[in-house]
Amino acid sequence: MDSLAAPETLFAGCRRYDSMPKLVLHSSYLISTLLGRIFRTMAQNVRLQCIGVILWALLHPAMTTAQQPALNLIPLPANVQSGAGSLKVDSTFSVGFTGYTEPRLERAGERFLRQLARQTGLLLALKPSKTAKATLVIQTDRAGKEIQEVGEDESYILDVSTASARLRASTPLGAMHGLQTFLQLVDVAPDGFAAPAVTIQDKPRFPWRGLMLDSARHFIPLEVIRRNLDGLEAVKMNVFHWHLSENQGFRAESKKFPKLHESGSDSLYYTQDEIRDLIAYARDRGIRVVPEFDMPGHSTAWFVGHPELASGKGPYEIERRWGIFDPAMDPTSEKVYKFLDDFIGEMARIFPDHYFHIGGDEVSGKEWDANPKIQGFMKAHGIKNNEALQAYFSGRVQKLVTKHGKTVVGWDEVLVEGVPKDIVIQSWRGQASLAKAAKQGFRGILSNGYYLDLGWSAARHYAVDPMSGDAANLSAEEKQRILGGESCMWAEYISPENVDSRIWPRNAAIAERLWSPQEVRDPASMYARLDFVSARLEWLGLTHRSVSRHMLQRLAGSASSSEFAALRALAEVVEPVKDYTREQTAPAEPTSTTPMNRVVDAVPLESDAGRRFGELVDQFVASSCHDGAAEARLRAQLTVWRDNDAILQPLAERSFLVKEIAANSRDLSALGAMGLAALDAIAKGQSAPDSWRTQQLAIVEQIKKPRAQLLLIPAPAIQRLVEAAAAGGACSAAKP
Amino acid sequence: MDSLAAPETLFAGCRRYDSMPKLVLHSSYLISTLLGRIFRTMAQNVRLQCIGVILWALLHPAMTTAQQPALNLIPLPANVQSGAGSLKVDSTFSVGFTGYTEPRLERAGERFLRQLARQTGLLLALKPSKTAKATLVIQTDRAGKEIQEVGEDESYILDVSTASARLRASTPLGAMHGLQTFLQLVDVAPDGFAAPAVTIQDKPRFPWRGLMLDSARHFIPLEVIRRNLDGLEAVKMNVFHWHLSENQGFRAESKKFPKLHESGSDSLYYTQDEIRDLIAYARDRGIRVVPEFDMPGHSTAWFVGHPELASGKGPYEIERRWGIFDPAMDPTSEKVYKFLDDFIGEMARIFPDHYFHIGGDEVSGKEWDANPKIQGFMKAHGIKNNEALQAYFSGRVQKLVTKHGKTVVGWDEVLVEGVPKDIVIQSWRGQASLAKAAKQGFRGILSNGYYLDLGWSAARHYAVDPMSGDAANLSAEEKQRILGGESCMWAEYISPENVDSRIWPRNAAIAERLWSPQEVRDPASMYARLDFVSARLEWLGLTHRSVSRHMLQRLAGSASSSEFAALRALAEVVEPVKDYTREQTAPAEPTSTTPMNRVVDAVPLESDAGRRFGELVDQFVASSCHDGAAEARLRAQLTVWRDNDAILQPLAERSFLVKEIAANSRDLSALGAMGLAALDAIAKGQSAPDSWRTQQLAIVEQIKKPRAQLLLIPAPAIQRLVEAAAAGGACSAAKP
Repeated sequence: MDSLAAPETLFAGCRRYDSMPKLVLHSSYLISTLLGRIFRTMAQNVRLQCIGVILWALLHPAMTTAQQPALNLIPLPANVQSGAGSLKVDSTFSVGFTGYTEPRLERAGERFLRQLARQTGLLLALKPSKTAKATLVIQTDRAGKEIQEVGEDESYILDVSTASARLRASTPLGAMHGLQTFLQLVDVAPDGFAAPAVTIQDKPRFPWRGLMLDSARHFIPLEVIRRNLDGLEAVKMNVFHWHLSENQGFRAESKKFPKLHESGSDSLYYTQDEIRDLIAYARDRGIRVVPEFDMPGHSTAWFVGHPELASGKGPYEIERRWGIFDPAMDPTSEKVYKFLDDFIGEMARIFPDHYFHIGGDEVSGKEWDANPKIQGFMKAHGIKNNEALQAYFSGRVQKLVTKHGKTVVGWDEVLVEGVPKDIVIQSWRGQASLAKAAKQGFRGILSNGYYLDLGWSAARHYAVDPMSGDAANLSAEEKQRILGGESCMWAEYISPENVDSRIWPRNAAIAERLWSPQEVRDPASMYARLDFVSARLEWLGLTHRSVSRHMLQRLAGSASSSEFAALRALAEVVEPVKDYTREQTAPAEPTSTTPMNRVVDAVPLESDAGRRFGELVDQFVASSCHDGAAEARLRAQLTVWRDNDAILQPLAERSFLVKEIAANSRDLSALGAMGLAALDAIAKGQSAPDSWRTQQLAIVEQIKKPRAQLLLIPAPAIQRLVEAAAAGGACSAAKP
Repeated sequence: MDSLAAPETLFAGCRRYDSMPKLVLHSSYLISTLLGRIFRTMAQNVRLQCIGVILWALLHPAMTTAQQPALNLIPLPANVQSGAGSLKVDSTFSVGFTGYTEPRLERAGERFLRQLARQTGLLLALKPSKTAKATLVIQTDRAGKEIQEVGEDESYILDVSTASARLRASTPLGAMHGLQTFLQLVDVAPDGFAAPAVTIQDKPRFPWRGLMLDSARHFIPLEVIRRNLDGLEAVKMNVFHWHLSENQGFRAESKKFPKLHESGSDSLYYTQDEIRDLIAYARDRGIRVVPEFDMPGHSTAWFVGHPELASGKGPYEIERRWGIFDPAMDPTSEKVYKFLDDFIGEMARIFPDHYFHIGGDEVSGKEWDANPKIQGFMKAHGIKNNEALQAYFSGRVQKLVTKHGKTVVGWDEVLVEGVPKDIVIQSWRGQASLAKAAKQGFRGILSNGYYLDLGWSAARHYAVDPMSGDAANLSAEEKQRILGGESCMWAEYISPENVDSRIWPRNAAIAERLWSPQEVRDPASMYARLDFVSARLEWLGLTHRSVSRHMLQRLAGSASSSEFAALRALAEVVEPVKDYTREQTAPAEPTSTTPMNRVVDAVPLESDAGRRFGELVDQFVASSCHDGAAEARLRAQLTVWRDNDAILQPLAERSFLVKEIAANSRDLSALGAMGLAALDAIAKGQSAPDSWRTQQLAIVEQIKKPRAQLLLIPAPAIQRLVEAAAAGGACSAAKP
């Protein structure tokens, strides 16, 4: 909710989720008296648990923007009640299990202790005990499902007092989630490390919360996947959707059809043993692994070794370009179904999950159009168009998947007339598509709005809710069919080197969207907590923060320290172009062998420094340009930018990779100078001339255009400063 | 050599090393005419190869300080001759072998290609071929020794032309060194990645160039050791001296005496399989592994499982404190020698190297004094003191080591009368000790001056030469006995987390000292190249640069971005106290379980920013305080420091680990203000009052004292600014 919600809204949330999370409900003391009476009336209608939270909400609304959030948790729990004091975390810290235990749980305990040791630097005993005599006692009721199920109980209750902590959960899944929450609670404090006293009752909003990773377009080594699974565990995502085949690569070893990976992967594939290990690794972290083998399109790599599956003549080669290509399986060939029967059977035995993703997206249909045999088949069977032909194919494949004991997941396209109701639709099209499916009785998961490769800000992803739009109007029963969502990491422009930085930290915002109550949606609070959690994720070995400097060092070669500082100053305020612009603006057609060593590959997809600068400008303008401290900070920053280009240009002469951003560098210096001029005009207390304003804004418009596939993020904020200067003494009128 | 050497010196170097390295011999064009005649006479006496270099030297002396070194190589080769143009390194780059090959060499080729791909971001074919049709052709004459030997040929010749590159070597060792040189040559250029055209003839000055790592006081995981071996390979060090036993831990698995590691290691030990793997890993990189089992002292951990070996009564526990302790083996017990015979035999079979280190340092002797049986033995055998008793012990152990086919290495203490001449002395005492040994016919390696744990600057280590002092006066034959040196990483204050940052980049300066010609000794050139190579070492996975930010993040917890920037600004100009001061100034007695999560653990041992600030002050003062650009940079830096404390203090209130450096932070701000005051006084052109000078210098003296075991590195430079201000208009007189 934004700022302070009406008490009714609080109530609604409270009934649905037992209680609302404290952090979004901070209120100011000022209105507590005012609301005291309302509260007393309300209190009679709600359960005791809920009261504390509402009380907090009414007392602390001013903290809603979470400039100083009390607890840096992502995702925010369903219900948080703060206590007094904190639990000291020192080298005597221990973990004990009571109730049900299993090796998975014990490993989770060890992993927790290792992680706690890492994030504090304390030398802890790394073995949990099986007693209640421990700092943190974990009580689990029963075993989880042998194969993790959708909707399996993931709830937990975490009580932290000044003396000890207790974590209770029905299943190991809940216990593992609670351990992650505890890790996020521990922070450095005035007299040591500590976790605040708190009671947290938590459970997810959606049962399907995933990340899809395309390791087909670019092969991603297992160690990279493993650390990303650690990241998923940290933010309580529970599905790893593994996109394993594409035009550009077939990445899973098939013993039945070895030509699939031998011919289709450039020797970059996962062996069956490696896949089994990874599945076990994921299960240990409460994560299901859903394999995707995309068909009938996106399948060129299959045909390199098995051209007989294709609708065209072949021969086929591994595709090196990006885009949608014509090769597609022959839906009219019984050999294809025999092959897929065997293949799906083989994979179904390796991947234990109940769900099996068959892709189904983006079939161009051209190979079908061009194949007389297929055309004849369509006529003979009254299949009137390619969509119907794909429906026929999907239906046949769905039966094979069912035969091997799995449920089909597919992209929107697989949903055509006559498909059985038990399939799950993964929607790249959006909530309307999802809602339509739900109305027809299909379960679905949302991915539209969660495409990590499009370079959106965390806030933009965060604002996307599976239950919004058409989905908001579904009946309760229909809503149940919306299982959750998956972020998608498509791999045209990622490499093993920078993939972490393309997933994190933004994926954590999506994880919160899918776990926390719908009402949790304040982006300022999210960013404040994200900063903290992002730093924490580094302890898992994720390189999303460190890789940028590392890659810039490559660009910089033997740069002097001041040149390198100038390169970083520029790099920290640019972002790669958004959506599908990178492909469109590429200097040469990008392929899977294009090096990803440019600035556009090195910088994060979202500029923290750029966002903060914009906030500072807003703060300054909102103060009617009277906030002297903000002005001083703006001046310091603008001066650095103005002077930056002169330092950077010599390096641009020496490095072709820096040369590429020479124009961006000049633009940044221009913005710096323009911002300083605006501040000077504001300081004079008079309106800057209109001609100046027009001229400056024209320059900003030029600067806003992408160069070297990069956007200069401070441009709009500089524009606001120019507007403020033009507004003169009444600069606050220019507030956006 | 410093600046420009006399031609005679050039000659001497030239004769000895075939030719001098170009980089230290840059000269100015100005004197070329003057020296032309000398050169022409000289040229008749030297080989052609040498001429080019001398010519270069005479022409380019002004570049000696290497502000812009032509080639960023560490260690500098014995002989470099630059060509014209450069070899383009793009995705078509390939490696081919001609002549002798072996799997080790092929793996080196693959490793080289992986590393080249990593440092450029290019997608290279990662398999070398066995043809001469390749961008880089490697021709090796013959196999190396089955067990790498001291003095085995490590030379190579690397020719890079604009069309291709050729690497020739007698043995795989030379080829591997040449590959590392090539990797350092490749840099980003105006139109792609490239290696400059050059001919390098190279061979090491000393045959024994090592790093000793103490993984006994703190256990260091194998993955950490492996990446450090990669680092050693990169700087052409060829010995990994593995300190495996200490009072605080026995780290090698013994199958014969399993109680050694089971009782003596807290379960932190290397299995025999792991050790064999590591030895193979090292051999692949041209690195010998010399194990050290320290005896008869430094051996408490042995006695936990085997108290019968000790001279005292026991029982013994793993030592948790640091220092020299009394437990020592019983030199009078035949059981001890029987045990050591079996143990050394077992280890001799695992460690193939011809050398076996038995430690032998720092025996307190107290257990011997207190043991009547030992006293009786000494009387009976005419052993007049503990030194003689240790000599008796060393003699016995030496025989056992010889029996198992190895040569003894030991610290200075093992060199006593009657020891056989084939042992090697590792000197922590210094060149005099080494020279004395050499005169007596013993071979030796220097470690005094190379103790990485003492926190010295790279320049200070760099200035230590094994052949200086008494060693300089040895005869040629005696000099041959000085085999080289080893840097030593003692482990009281390192953890697996920060050990990389304690070894690197300073170890690269020592590596150069031991490889490059003695005349290569300009610290400015070294630092310029070290900056570059240090960044390169990160591609090996070494964390010496990234770990500091990571550890500071832990200290900072949920700090705002400006607070964290302030913390980093302070952290980058402090250094841990030097030599053995850390122990002496510890707030509580440090032990092996003390967390290493403080600022003193997080910051590098040498402050680059501090060094650069000092250089900038020197530059400013040397300009008689007229260098306006330098002044502006000084002002900017001093202003940041002055204002830093106000930003940092709120964080210090919230974090006990930041609180510890609150006084350092105040001091830095005081230095900033003082520096600005000095600049203001200088700007006025009058001498600052003497009373002011006295007062400021008194404050600086206070600030120079360690706080929180940290030194504030800019203090002496600020002192120079104050002196300059007091000198007034004639501020250049204050130049240090």
